[in-house]
Amino acid sequence: MKAVCLISGGMDSYVAAAIAREEGYLLYGLTFNYGQKNRRELTSARKVAASLKMKKHWIVPVCLPVTGSSLTDPRRAVPRKRTASVPTTYVPARNTIFISHGLAYAEVIGAEAVFVGVNAIDYSGYPDCRPEYLRQFQRLIDLALKKTVKGDRLFLKAPLLFLSKAEIVKKGLALGLDFSLTWSCYLSGRLPCGSCPSCRLRARAFQQAGVRDPSGRGK
Amino acid sequence: MKAVCLISGGMDSYVAAAIAREEGYLLYGLTFNYGQKNRRELTSARKVAASLKMKKHWIVPVCLPVTGSSLTDPRRAVPRKRTASVPTTYVPARNTIFISHGLAYAEVIGAEAVFVGVNAIDYSGYPDCRPEYLRQFQRLIDLALKKTVKGDRLFLKAPLLFLSKAEIVKKGLALGLDFSLTWSCYLSGRLPCGSCPSCRLRARAFQQAGVRDPSGRGK
Repeated sequence: MKAVCLISGGMDSYVAAAIAREEGYLLYGLTFNYGQKNRRELTSARKVAASLKMKKHWIVPVCLPVTGSSLTDPRRAVPRKRTASVPTTYVPARNTIFISHGLAYAEVIGAEAVFVGVNAIDYSGYPDCRPEYLRQFQRLIDLALKKTVKGDRLFLKAPLLFLSKAEIVKKGLALGLDFSLTWSCYLSGRLPCGSCPSCRLRARAFQQAGVRDPSGRGK
Repeated sequence: MKAVCLISGGMDSYVAAAIAREEGYLLYGLTFNYGQKNRRELTSARKVAASLKMKKHWIVPVCLPVTGSSLTDPRRAVPRKRTASVPTTYVPARNTIFISHGLAYAEVIGAEAVFVGVNAIDYSGYPDCRPEYLRQFQRLIDLALKKTVKGDRLFLKAPLLFLSKAEIVKKGLALGLDFSLTWSCYLSGRLPCGSCPSCRLRARAFQQAGVRDPSGRGK
């Protein structure tokens, strides 16, 4: 039983992939290099893949002429504060592109599921992290692939969808995960910056879970 | 008014893009280099983009660890005959990956539509060419993008969906298109092979339209 796991190098996709392993899947990892300033997450993704004993792990380049996101555009600074609406760190159609690649890989290797670390509770205001988006994507998958012509299904699984960030931390610790392997900061410093929205979200998660963050700046 | 046009270098996407131009859109082209053996279609895509005076045209690499398709795998021959079910030329999730890139580009440049040359009548048995697939994709788009959070829409347009191949030829000629710029053959010879399923489909289209194919082997 095979599963494709999309892993970013962050906490959520690490826990989601570990859940897939717990469910008995053989793991095939995909990580995307889409020009993110945060290069450290690619290194973290490799560590995560190794720690979960993934059968394969590929870092796949995704090339877009432009993205207009502060996560990739050197002329736009990553925001220091969480904004109310969709933040500048939004990368257009990112999850749609990533999941599409996951489908292709899953179909070729005969996987039964694609696992994503998408979370709808403490998420960052991205439209492609919403439950209705994922439900709709499942309906698209049910029409998109060769195997679906024969009535077979490929399942898009987001086991963290309705967990809080603190619950994700607890779940990961219960599964014996080492969060020091992961990287959440939007930047690529030696230590996490501690002040970008992603660092703040992470700090709060560990705080609420009542445990220390093993990454550099955990308090 | 901008439209992203996905062009392959073949006839259908050329006509679809020309229809977008006729409708008054400023055209932004995307072509995908996904390792297809047929390298000639990339050259044709450039010619098509130039002939339609596209504002921009990008050839975007799409990298997958494996595709399992005879269109890309050097160990698998492109079939000579049309098969009944989904043919070996099927590339897993191809249109899903391509359209996803189109969405990203469209959102960044503020385009209102993504045009695809998908055709459901004389198509090649690919699941991701079916009308229900495209309808479902529109529903996904309506949830996937930043602009859709504000209730704005981006339209996925497939103006050739219900045309026969002969009607596509006639439509293209009525729009003054030069089909000698396009390339349909699955291989990359000096002339089209004339015998692969795509060449056969093209030959029949011109025959039924009652006109000569200006590409090398047209009879």
